Amino acid sequence: MTAQIIDGTIIAKSIRNDVAQKIKAFQAQYPRFQPQLVVVQAGERPDSSTYIRMKAKAAEEVGIKFNHVNVPEAATADEIIQVVKKLSDDETISGVLVQLPLGPHVDADGTRAVTEAVCPEKDVDGFHAYNIGHLSSRAASPLFVPCTPAAVIRLLESTGVSIAGSTAVVLGRSDIVGNPVAALLRSRDATVTQCHSRTKNIEQIVRQADIVVAAIGQSAFVKGSWVKPGAVVIDVGINFVPDATKKSGQRLVGDVDEDAFAVASHITPVPGGVGPMTVALLMENVYNSAVRLWQKARERKIKPLALDIKEKVPSDIEIAMAQIPKPVTQLAKEMGLLPDELESYGKFKAKVELSVLDRLAHRKDGKYIVIAGITPTPLGEGKSTTTIGLAQALGAHLGRPAFACVRQPSQGPTFGIKGGAAGGGYSQVIPMDEFNLHLTGDIHAVTAANNLLAAALDARIFHEATQSDKGLFSRLVPSKKGKREFAPLMLKRLKKLGIDKTNPNDLTPEEINLFARLDIDAETITWNRVLDTNDRFLRKVTLGRNPTEKGHEREAGFDIAVASECMAVLALTTDLVDMRERLGNMVVATSKRGEAITADDIGVGGALAVLMKDTVKPNLMQTLEGTPVFVHAGPFANIAHGNSSILADRIALKLAGTEEGDSSDRVGYVLTEGGFGADMGMEKFCNIKCRVSGLKPDATVIVATTRALKMHGGGPEVTPGKPLADTYTKEDLVTLKEGCQNLTRHIENSKKFGVKVIIAINQFSSDTPAELELIRREALAAGADAAIVSNHWAEGGAGARALAEAVIATCEGESGFRFLYDLNLPIAQKIEIICKEIYRAAGIELSEHASKQIETYTRQGYGNLPICMAKTQYSFSHNPSLKNAPSGFTVPIREVRLSAGAGFLYPILGDMQTMPGLGTRPGFWEVGLDPQTGRVVGLF
Amino acid sequence: MTAQIIDGTIIAKSIRNDVAQKIKAFQAQYPRFQPQLVVVQAGERPDSSTYIRMKAKAAEEVGIKFNHVNVPEAATADEIIQVVKKLSDDETISGVLVQLPLGPHVDADGTRAVTEAVCPEKDVDGFHAYNIGHLSSRAASPLFVPCTPAAVIRLLESTGVSIAGSTAVVLGRSDIVGNPVAALLRSRDATVTQCHSRTKNIEQIVRQADIVVAAIGQSAFVKGSWVKPGAVVIDVGINFVPDATKKSGQRLVGDVDEDAFAVASHITPVPGGVGPMTVALLMENVYNSAVRLWQKARERKIKPLALDIKEKVPSDIEIAMAQIPKPVTQLAKEMGLLPDELESYGKFKAKVELSVLDRLAHRKDGKYIVIAGITPTPLGEGKSTTTIGLAQALGAHLGRPAFACVRQPSQGPTFGIKGGAAGGGYSQVIPMDEFNLHLTGDIHAVTAANNLLAAALDARIFHEATQSDKGLFSRLVPSKKGKREFAPLMLKRLKKLGIDKTNPNDLTPEEINLFARLDIDAETITWNRVLDTNDRFLRKVTLGRNPTEKGHEREAGFDIAVASECMAVLALTTDLVDMRERLGNMVVATSKRGEAITADDIGVGGALAVLMKDTVKPNLMQTLEGTPVFVHAGPFANIAHGNSSILADRIALKLAGTEEGDSSDRVGYVLTEGGFGADMGMEKFCNIKCRVSGLKPDATVIVATTRALKMHGGGPEVTPGKPLADTYTKEDLVTLKEGCQNLTRHIENSKKFGVKVIIAINQFSSDTPAELELIRREALAAGADAAIVSNHWAEGGAGARALAEAVIATCEGESGFRFLYDLNLPIAQKIEIICKEIYRAAGIELSEHASKQIETYTRQGYGNLPICMAKTQYSFSHNPSLKNAPSGFTVPIREVRLSAGAGFLYPILGDMQTMPGLGTRPGFWEVGLDPQTGRVVGLF
Repeated sequence: MTAQIIDGTIIAKSIRNDVAQKIKAFQAQYPRFQPQLVVVQAGERPDSSTYIRMKAKAAEEVGIKFNHVNVPEAATADEIIQVVKKLSDDETISGVLVQLPLGPHVDADGTRAVTEAVCPEKDVDGFHAYNIGHLSSRAASPLFVPCTPAAVIRLLESTGVSIAGSTAVVLGRSDIVGNPVAALLRSRDATVTQCHSRTKNIEQIVRQADIVVAAIGQSAFVKGSWVKPGAVVIDVGINFVPDATKKSGQRLVGDVDEDAFAVASHITPVPGGVGPMTVALLMENVYNSAVRLWQKARERKIKPLALDIKEKVPSDIEIAMAQIPKPVTQLAKEMGLLPDELESYGKFKAKVELSVLDRLAHRKDGKYIVIAGITPTPLGEGKSTTTIGLAQALGAHLGRPAFACVRQPSQGPTFGIKGGAAGGGYSQVIPMDEFNLHLTGDIHAVTAANNLLAAALDARIFHEATQSDKGLFSRLVPSKKGKREFAPLMLKRLKKLGIDKTNPNDLTPEEINLFARLDIDAETITWNRVLDTNDRFLRKVTLGRNPTEKGHEREAGFDIAVASECMAVLALTTDLVDMRERLGNMVVATSKRGEAITADDIGVGGALAVLMKDTVKPNLMQTLEGTPVFVHAGPFANIAHGNSSILADRIALKLAGTEEGDSSDRVGYVLTEGGFGADMGMEKFCNIKCRVSGLKPDATVIVATTRALKMHGGGPEVTPGKPLADTYTKEDLVTLKEGCQNLTRHIENSKKFGVKVIIAINQFSSDTPAELELIRREALAAGADAAIVSNHWAEGGAGARALAEAVIATCEGESGFRFLYDLNLPIAQKIEIICKEIYRAAGIELSEHASKQIETYTRQGYGNLPICMAKTQYSFSHNPSLKNAPSGFTVPIREVRLSAGAGFLYPILGDMQTMPGLGTRPGFWEVGLDPQTGRVVGLF
Repeated sequence: MTAQIIDGTIIAKSIRNDVAQKIKAFQAQYPRFQPQLVVVQAGERPDSSTYIRMKAKAAEEVGIKFNHVNVPEAATADEIIQVVKKLSDDETISGVLVQLPLGPHVDADGTRAVTEAVCPEKDVDGFHAYNIGHLSSRAASPLFVPCTPAAVIRLLESTGVSIAGSTAVVLGRSDIVGNPVAALLRSRDATVTQCHSRTKNIEQIVRQADIVVAAIGQSAFVKGSWVKPGAVVIDVGINFVPDATKKSGQRLVGDVDEDAFAVASHITPVPGGVGPMTVALLMENVYNSAVRLWQKARERKIKPLALDIKEKVPSDIEIAMAQIPKPVTQLAKEMGLLPDELESYGKFKAKVELSVLDRLAHRKDGKYIVIAGITPTPLGEGKSTTTIGLAQALGAHLGRPAFACVRQPSQGPTFGIKGGAAGGGYSQVIPMDEFNLHLTGDIHAVTAANNLLAAALDARIFHEATQSDKGLFSRLVPSKKGKREFAPLMLKRLKKLGIDKTNPNDLTPEEINLFARLDIDAETITWNRVLDTNDRFLRKVTLGRNPTEKGHEREAGFDIAVASECMAVLALTTDLVDMRERLGNMVVATSKRGEAITADDIGVGGALAVLMKDTVKPNLMQTLEGTPVFVHAGPFANIAHGNSSILADRIALKLAGTEEGDSSDRVGYVLTEGGFGADMGMEKFCNIKCRVSGLKPDATVIVATTRALKMHGGGPEVTPGKPLADTYTKEDLVTLKEGCQNLTRHIENSKKFGVKVIIAINQFSSDTPAELELIRREALAAGADAAIVSNHWAEGGAGARALAEAVIATCEGESGFRFLYDLNLPIAQKIEIICKEIYRAAGIELSEHASKQIETYTRQGYGNLPICMAKTQYSFSHNPSLKNAPSGFTVPIREVRLSAGAGFLYPILGDMQTMPGLGTRPGFWEVGLDPQTGRVVGLF
């Protein structure tokens, strides 16, 4: 008989075609799907280069991106390992293959170490010990089968001859062919005998075989006479024999003698048998890897932490300390961050790199929901708790990507009055002590930046007052090794002054005076120092009383750190360069010439950015149920806009986002909180924060409680530390219904921004079903898109499940978001629009001072900034005692201040304390460390 | 013929004996060596329990610790994986074995996941895919061979029959026996045929075999007639057959029929063949693992970073930014820290847990060397640079464990005058921007703690001034739900007042007055606020000028943050509980009754400890050459003791330490720096820091420069920013020799503490060989144990190699360290001893004020504290202009202050600035961020 030729070239082509079609089909759904193969080569051995070119050609043919990484032949194993590991970590790469041999100085151990530096998931060559282990085991399947052994099996299968039950002989025991082929045949139920150089009676053994696989590396090793008639012969040998008829003088042959063709039933030719198959199966491995990695990368599966819910809800710190958070590295992985995108700060906090925004730029943002509240009582109505509880419900109970974005609390109140942790009951951010203390140091960095600017400002005034123009100039622009040069920031100032010179020696005395003398009017200084401590004695101080300051005293003040404009800048910035610009643009005073003096005029803008460079990265923490929380920035809700950062929201929206090809049930949710009532927090969120970010919210959740609504309906005063009146603890539908007007107005206001409105009725244990139902009905009647009772405080995410479902249902479709006013309107008109449309005032009344300021800002070019109203949170009006839904009042505008760096104007409507104090019995009395465990006790 | 019986029981016993002896031998050298095996069992299957008991018995016999971890049968794979991972991470455990099967609900994939959760390095069972992969490969050896397959080979080897070249048949293809046995035989050069249920002609195949391994699980499967006469038969079968003669009604038999005993040359019985061997080989695996892990754990191999040294030394920040630091996790691993002992703060900084002190308590400390200097010029003589350079030499060039322990610099000067980074040139701490900025926030935490105490103090005075005794008391001890209770800290105060009551209602009006009214004399307040900013206008301020403070103004001051006593406490504390006590004991003022008022009297000691709880963990960074640096605490070198922390030194000494059995060349070195000249930094190091720590230094390195010595010899004034006079840049042996008296005296002083003295001559490029040689000779003449020229600034560690070798040679043997004075001496006498012995004064002159203070402190019980002299660093005397080696002067003591928490008294000898200022052209002008890379530019 004449053996049938097993045509590897044709089979390989069909495999390549198949891979090419699969890739196209996948890309039709997901255009960003792109398998990529990287081959690492040390040096430039011609034979290796030839193999690599073959792989490159096949890759191009099937649509796999190919990347040839060449390292010097002299590279050590350690150096190549570094390269290989980096490639393994690159999420765009589907397969990493190290072309052997490496340089002659790399020994077998080194080579193995390099091979095993490829992560098993990208080991398309299949030679990692982990994959070989699975290949050799009966109970497991490897992620990848090495290509040549796989080719042997495919070729055998192509013949239709049964492997199972056959007698197979494998000649050779290399790790590349013999051993894995034997394992593959064994797992396919052949009875395998493996022969090698030490085998005594090979001929006799081969003669028994139904299947012969020759991989011994010796031409014509297997004679036709050895082969059992009708056997299948796979020839893996690659040997070159002299052949004068060839141009190269040699010819490629296998291990099997030509006379076997007359005996075997099927036989592979050399060339044209196993050879072409290997590359084709490599392509298949790369494709399979790409699909597996694609699916894995898109898994965003948060593993919830189980909550042990007690009937009687314990204290916040007891609940928080009873839960063991997951390592933040695990959380990050679960939500789809790469290891390089995380900077751990201890085990449970991390900063997230802004580079994630570039990596996920292709994604469509997730749904964006702002959590606001009705006009609150002084006890607060659970906005933070609802934000966290809703995130727990979406993330841990409905399996959706869900991110809570909250503000970092000031440390001051932590030791002053208790309260202020994010959330409460079974809806909290943990570890709560870290959350309430230093976190990752952002507020400290803000403090440092703020105070460096303050110190620089006073020092500059002092030095200007005690030096001549010439002395000042020669110190500001000193001669170094005989040369004078302006610092880059000085050129900025010269430009501002209209002086077009770059050589310090060219300045006229007049220009020197203009340049070197900021001539700050100390009376106009608006820049306070800050501390993150409740220190009432610093509210107003006299500075410079030491003799070294030569009598240059002045009155000044300290604010709590979060009231610093630096914090507002952090919250509103969009990247590091933008933050640098904003910090430099902050106006701290006016010169006697009427010029606005900025941080950059003082030379400190760059240093402020350096101090705050790490603050720009959002902080990652988690809820009690192990879902992600971004804690980032915490600007004062009064003189600033009171919203957490744009950057955290943006990153969360990308992490919650989807890409082309994704089904809609993959979309995630970002819950961000606006400080104070919706008339403040949500209005500023929409008109200031979204204006800077360009983001469009899909919905607003307004948190309401029976307590606050009853207060608006005429209930007695609610005071912290005093017992609640009966109205609040017993059913009172009349008072409640009256107070629902407050809710109604917040709903109407929200609608003016074109967003969906969901009312979250934050349930208290004393609420009656009739009361809850009344609120629900009133809310729907007022136009709310949904109104849901939620019990997350007592039940965690499970208690907010209905609310979460309502959020999902309501957020379908596109956002109809719009701003309330046009930035180009005159300042006063913008103020008036907010007062009339949101507060329902009859109008505004500008003080003379305010009118003058508006004139100045307009002249200085600050007229087109948005407005950040500094108003009480306890009423729609400027008067905290006007409860419920007042109207017709006139809003007095006492003054208007400028945050030029943050980018808003803030009209002042009343007295505001920017530095809290400590009472007689501050919270710090109970705070301490457990001496045994070192854990914090007594905090909340 | 009758087969020879292969007696597994005897061979197993000899293996066990061998293991037992090896363990004993190892323990004779290293008493702490203790192999440990853990077996994890799910549920309580009787057969599994029997196997585990056998393992426990064998372990006990050979001296292996045995640990049986039982998880519920219902445990999920994920739950068991958590347990297994934790055990894998436990460094006391040598081997982890999961007893299969798991619960019936755990499928094959789950079982494999559990098996592979054991780290390959502890996989004594040998079934991890990684180990199986290596077992199946020709080019690799597994860390562990599975025990039963290993037993088969051992039994074969015991017969003396050659495996190589033999024909072997393995019956069975299980992952536990058949497959690994086939791989092992193949790697020993047998020609292996593997048979299984699908093999057609087993009988015929077996008949060819020289070696038969039966693992098919069927009694009497292999007939005597199948066996080739003279073959070796290993029977791995475990089958039970009915046997009425046995009590259990059954009998254990193998896979081989009894008639084979007449045919084979050697055969294993069942029982008594493979069975006993398996457990013995498990013991061997555990022992081997223990040895390997022991050696690995003791590897403290720092992989140096290569330095690219330029001929012309670039700026500090250029050098620093050009080096890519290693990840801090890698550094920590290299120096022998466990993952759990590290808290990363970003990629290149970490905090180290104090628990490492417990783990390494058995180690003898490494060598302890304090780096001091001669009396410096205002430019500084390179003490930090020498500390870092020497650490680089020891660690990166001599391969010794070497730790630099340095202070964290204040952020204030970073933006004021340039300079202050740790080290310079090619001897620096990196990343240098992180080092000079926030680091891990310790200084910020100190600031927060300091200022909370200040705010609490002023608030208390205010509330006392505006409230009646009764009002005050009822607010301090409010009624909560009808009950009044003292906070724990209040009980401390009551005790101090001698009031033995615990019920607030029991206090008499007089006691209420004593308790509730601290009655602080505002004139006596010594507690300043602090900021980490150079802010001269805060040196003296008037507080409380806001109307809300009702006219309760007072004069107060701000210091730079590192001058806070909280910082001195951090530097001197020995653990968290100690720190808590010290913080509470800090005295802030005196009451009008003459009582010392402490932080705990104000109720804030616990809160201060909470704010500073993370500061107590030393910060880990690295040198330019990748060796470890602890950066921890930075108390002012003047009004405090100016040394880095005790805790960092302690941890470093343990990490550099050795244990019983170690050879002396394993010992490591800890280099810690004392601020200012040796008369200040070293004296305080010895008398204050070592007194608290109980540590004994082995040597002091005194850094000298030609520049400073020439200045002492009469050279012109050296002023920062001004060019140096010729004396300093040209050879001048006369002036230099004259100035060497300063060096001589520092050497004599060091000897008084009983430590070795090494002079490091910090080379400048303009130094001449004759100058350097002159210093060397003078130093040796003065009694120095060594004097070495060092060029680490220009060459990194390579430049300090000779110095490092001298340190190693000099530190041989035990330390002869002693204190300079006895704590029980009267305060004035202790001051006098320092002034006479170290400064060489004729005597001291106490002001009247100082005498009174000494009286008060003695009466209050603070008389036995050590003395922390607040003196200029520019002279041995109190007068900075007295250069070289003055004597005979009288030291005036103006006043003596108390740091009751830190635990020292500090006599004031002159004016000291505790808040630096900013000049006309502060360093911040150049500081900024590169907009492309986000990296810091212009810092130093």
